[in-house]
Amino acid sequence: MGKNITYKILEDHLISGTLIPGSEVEIKIDQTLTQDSTGTMVYLQLEAMDIKEIKTELSVAYIDHNTLQIGFENADDHAFIKSVAGKYGIHFSKPGNGICHQLHLEGFSIPGKTLLGSDSHTPTSGGMGVLAIGAGGLDVATAMASGSYFLTVPKVLNIKLTGALNPWVSAKDLSLYILKQLSVKGGVGKVVEYSGEGLKGLSLTDRATITNMGAELGATTSIFPSDENTRYYLKSLGREMDWVALSADRDAVYDETMEIDLSKITTMTAKPHSPDNVDTIENIKGMKVDQVLIGSCTNSSYKDLMKAAAILKNSAVHPDVDLGISPGSSKILKMLADNGALSTFLSAGARILECSCGPCIGMGQSPKNNGISLRTFNRNFCGRSGTENAEVYLVSPETAAISAIKGCLEDPISLGADIYIDEPLSYASSDSYFLYNKNIDTPVIMGPNIKPVPLNHMLTEGMTGKAVLKAGDNITTDDIMPSHAKLLPYRSNIPYLSTFCFSTIDENFWKKCDENNGGIVVGGENYGQGSSREHAALAPLHLGIKAIIVKSFARIHKKNLINSGIIPLEFVNLKDYNAIDEMDDLEIKSLKYSLTNDSEFTIYNKSKDITFNAAFTGSSRDIDILLAGGYLNYIKTKMTTMGEN
Amino acid sequence: MGKNITYKILEDHLISGTLIPGSEVEIKIDQTLTQDSTGTMVYLQLEAMDIKEIKTELSVAYIDHNTLQIGFENADDHAFIKSVAGKYGIHFSKPGNGICHQLHLEGFSIPGKTLLGSDSHTPTSGGMGVLAIGAGGLDVATAMASGSYFLTVPKVLNIKLTGALNPWVSAKDLSLYILKQLSVKGGVGKVVEYSGEGLKGLSLTDRATITNMGAELGATTSIFPSDENTRYYLKSLGREMDWVALSADRDAVYDETMEIDLSKITTMTAKPHSPDNVDTIENIKGMKVDQVLIGSCTNSSYKDLMKAAAILKNSAVHPDVDLGISPGSSKILKMLADNGALSTFLSAGARILECSCGPCIGMGQSPKNNGISLRTFNRNFCGRSGTENAEVYLVSPETAAISAIKGCLEDPISLGADIYIDEPLSYASSDSYFLYNKNIDTPVIMGPNIKPVPLNHMLTEGMTGKAVLKAGDNITTDDIMPSHAKLLPYRSNIPYLSTFCFSTIDENFWKKCDENNGGIVVGGENYGQGSSREHAALAPLHLGIKAIIVKSFARIHKKNLINSGIIPLEFVNLKDYNAIDEMDDLEIKSLKYSLTNDSEFTIYNKSKDITFNAAFTGSSRDIDILLAGGYLNYIKTKMTTMGEN
Repeated sequence: MGKNITYKILEDHLISGTLIPGSEVEIKIDQTLTQDSTGTMVYLQLEAMDIKEIKTELSVAYIDHNTLQIGFENADDHAFIKSVAGKYGIHFSKPGNGICHQLHLEGFSIPGKTLLGSDSHTPTSGGMGVLAIGAGGLDVATAMASGSYFLTVPKVLNIKLTGALNPWVSAKDLSLYILKQLSVKGGVGKVVEYSGEGLKGLSLTDRATITNMGAELGATTSIFPSDENTRYYLKSLGREMDWVALSADRDAVYDETMEIDLSKITTMTAKPHSPDNVDTIENIKGMKVDQVLIGSCTNSSYKDLMKAAAILKNSAVHPDVDLGISPGSSKILKMLADNGALSTFLSAGARILECSCGPCIGMGQSPKNNGISLRTFNRNFCGRSGTENAEVYLVSPETAAISAIKGCLEDPISLGADIYIDEPLSYASSDSYFLYNKNIDTPVIMGPNIKPVPLNHMLTEGMTGKAVLKAGDNITTDDIMPSHAKLLPYRSNIPYLSTFCFSTIDENFWKKCDENNGGIVVGGENYGQGSSREHAALAPLHLGIKAIIVKSFARIHKKNLINSGIIPLEFVNLKDYNAIDEMDDLEIKSLKYSLTNDSEFTIYNKSKDITFNAAFTGSSRDIDILLAGGYLNYIKTKMTTMGEN
Repeated sequence: MGKNITYKILEDHLISGTLIPGSEVEIKIDQTLTQDSTGTMVYLQLEAMDIKEIKTELSVAYIDHNTLQIGFENADDHAFIKSVAGKYGIHFSKPGNGICHQLHLEGFSIPGKTLLGSDSHTPTSGGMGVLAIGAGGLDVATAMASGSYFLTVPKVLNIKLTGALNPWVSAKDLSLYILKQLSVKGGVGKVVEYSGEGLKGLSLTDRATITNMGAELGATTSIFPSDENTRYYLKSLGREMDWVALSADRDAVYDETMEIDLSKITTMTAKPHSPDNVDTIENIKGMKVDQVLIGSCTNSSYKDLMKAAAILKNSAVHPDVDLGISPGSSKILKMLADNGALSTFLSAGARILECSCGPCIGMGQSPKNNGISLRTFNRNFCGRSGTENAEVYLVSPETAAISAIKGCLEDPISLGADIYIDEPLSYASSDSYFLYNKNIDTPVIMGPNIKPVPLNHMLTEGMTGKAVLKAGDNITTDDIMPSHAKLLPYRSNIPYLSTFCFSTIDENFWKKCDENNGGIVVGGENYGQGSSREHAALAPLHLGIKAIIVKSFARIHKKNLINSGIIPLEFVNLKDYNAIDEMDDLEIKSLKYSLTNDSEFTIYNKSKDITFNAAFTGSSRDIDILLAGGYLNYIKTKMTTMGEN
């Protein structure tokens, strides 16, 4: 029976467990990456583990999120991360270098390796045949400390690509098309593995756009074979020696299969406020736009920006539009400067922003009230732009560029013959942004805004609490722990951050928790979708949330809850959701018993005098973690037991 | 008797009054400029005047301050300003185009013209022989509405330059040298007019650096002759037709004269926390630095950035340093991209920031806690960087660049032979950022954060109030109304902004005002130095401050107080300052009588049971404005009387 790429890599990295979908295995992690927004917490946790050296082949700490620096907090975080990086020999990427995923592709990704990153778009490296998984920061810290990661074995969904994309239709349009087909929960529990003749026409960075947006499917990750396009890209970066061929066996078996004829796809957009709210440009073109932003880890490759430049050449940005461009990396910005494309952007009247995540994570460039913003980014959740009532549309760089000229949503197909951009033969060098030194005696620098990690306590047999919030379906981590320019500087200060927990839904949430000694959160389907931020678990932990009862969970967030010692439960009968009102008094009995005996949990709604059942699904290790009161308590015990370090 | 340049221009523009230092004259204003931070208020005031058309030859609204946009407020302000600009035919410069002063020099400044700007660094255009004055926003609005401005006739201080600057010594070092000689109040009531053989070696943009930093002397403005260097610059911008020769008569008379031998000057820095706390680099070199920033309206000319690039060529930024570069204009960024200098910055590992004021106004790039930051900017007031305990040093681009490489404050003289940068033969074109349309029917767009201008009421005969604050010498407008990334978005929302009034000195100031029905502020010498922001008067107005009693005032701020209807009084005997304690009850009797009869004010300190005298100096027009309860009340009455529009 032939193997797919996913299982080849998993087998290659298997430490313990059996590769059966749904079961938990321990795999070797070759590489880790962090960004600064989640990274401060990761390195606080790594420090708390008190190890002597990291066990990965390569770990990189990127600074790309908090680069506006409107107070001392950001620069303090950068200094802290730099100091820990120096101590353990973690590569450090200085601010200004660019976005972690783009930089990791350029500099470090190697086909067939495993990569764990404390950012939900870590799967970007899957475009290069890396098994690249986004995880909570604690998992990443543990992967550095132990060299391994516990993974629920995913199913593999094969997407077979046939045909070729039509003129002006891009990898972004394909990503949006897939989101339309599968929805934001279509990838949950799965790796999306691409194959087929259609691959040939997709460059390495096209593929990275697709694996990047795979995060929006809720997928464990997405992965492409490593082929001649991969080799070409690595060669252009002076890393041909890192290339290895990687493909599924001819008779590979998949859990699910889907076929897409690329020639059937047209230009697309995701309308507010979800990446799967997809429509064709044709259907809604003509809509007036106020802002257009090109960049982010999804669409700031050399080709993306060159194509936008080609469209803007000899044109001007519409008077009513602000066009912002944030290149993905210093290499790419350098190439655009050297080949005249940057000049083209400036002649057109574009705003050139720093090489960083920037507005994609709400870090600046918030649109005006009720503003309509076209963005080449990956998420358009309500409020993520920093403007609550803004309407954000996700589009390709081509659609963005032509719309910036026209002042309204326009189809690039209207431009006629497509413009072909050559992939560069060689990338510029910009090594000055990386620091590689290691010195175990590097003093760790902690500024006053950096607070200790909150810790849970060992599980008790019974638990009571008010349903302090009853939320609907598809609650995002942006809902749970908003992430924008005003809050990002406080990622290392959980007590402060917690006062904004769920604030977009109920700004008194933290007060309710304060007054009721914490409580229980009730939610619908796909609870916790979106980014990998463990702050969406740490803030509830700080506020005393003991359990979350929902219809279903998003994978990473559920893991983060377990790591925080908050029990993630799912309704056995979905309609029981309707029988709970906000502020009802709930009681979970025989908690430890149910957990350890794999039986359903009986929950008593005192306010309604009714009882319903909820289930926990997780590995025996997850259970041990919950019993210990979260991962840090668990790992401390374990490391002591094992005599580690 | 020969004339100096200042009086030639004043005579040329005199509408009423006599050119005697200290007296008030009305002069014709040819051009105005606004930036977005003060501009929203300017255009609210212009709108309140209800005029049909503006009377200046040219007015430009620049967007350069609030460009981070961490909420909807900034983009709303931009949209508001753009709409008013369209209505009146005011040129509009989109965000991303660059810094107002740099852009105004490039595009619009004409020797011999008058320019009034709602930014204290408006004198930058004095480098081109423009009589360029920074003023409160209301004055600028009135200049647009009426075509004129009321000016207290300044004395003229002639600085005669002889010799030539030594290798690696720059216009910035000269500016710092002058600040060391004259202090931050050395220019109060004066125009600094440059002459002498030493001019020849100073390019147009060198001169603009010097006139820019003249604002730090407290001068009304600074001005250079218009000569062949001026013509060369205008020609390189395709504006040779705007050139006119302008110089003082050979036998010109000045009120004061100072001679500087340029060859005696060495490399300098202004140490924390004042631009006149100047020392030589030689004296303090070797100090470790954390951040280096090159840019701002002071030092982001083509030559400045090219010189920095020349130093950084084939070098890397020190691992412990963040080097940020914010070019002054899109033209300059385009030229740097086209000639490879931008590539050099990227190879060295610099952060490329948007063309805007950026960190100079505390808009991002705040240093870490206790961080040491070298900046090519014009002000290093405590807290202005956004980090209260940061230590900011003002330096030249040359010193900045070499220090960024070394990781410590280093003297560029150590580099040996100087690097000569050719002034460009022609500047790049980047016209797409300017909008020139006029349509009186343009609807004015006001977002929800834009609140009406606060209004005072007619003066009463007596006044009582607590001394809600007793401040020391050299209180800056940054002390009175802090200006940083977190507050700048609220420049059009005085009620909110007021809760931060004097917050760096006493965070409960606004509460004290609230509890005591406003009050009186007591201060020392040079009260209100710094930026032109009228918010430093509008916030106290909103809080009910009725009078300010100090040892002496900075010019622009005093005008802003009068415009707000807050009475600016000066101690007759400076030692009376010592006889007031904070929260003393003060009473000013016969207020209207003293004002209208030009007699001293008797102030009774009830708490101490002592009486002292204070004086008001101002024109009869100032008195009328104070009696009317501020300028908007005054002008409304006047315009009604005159049947204007």
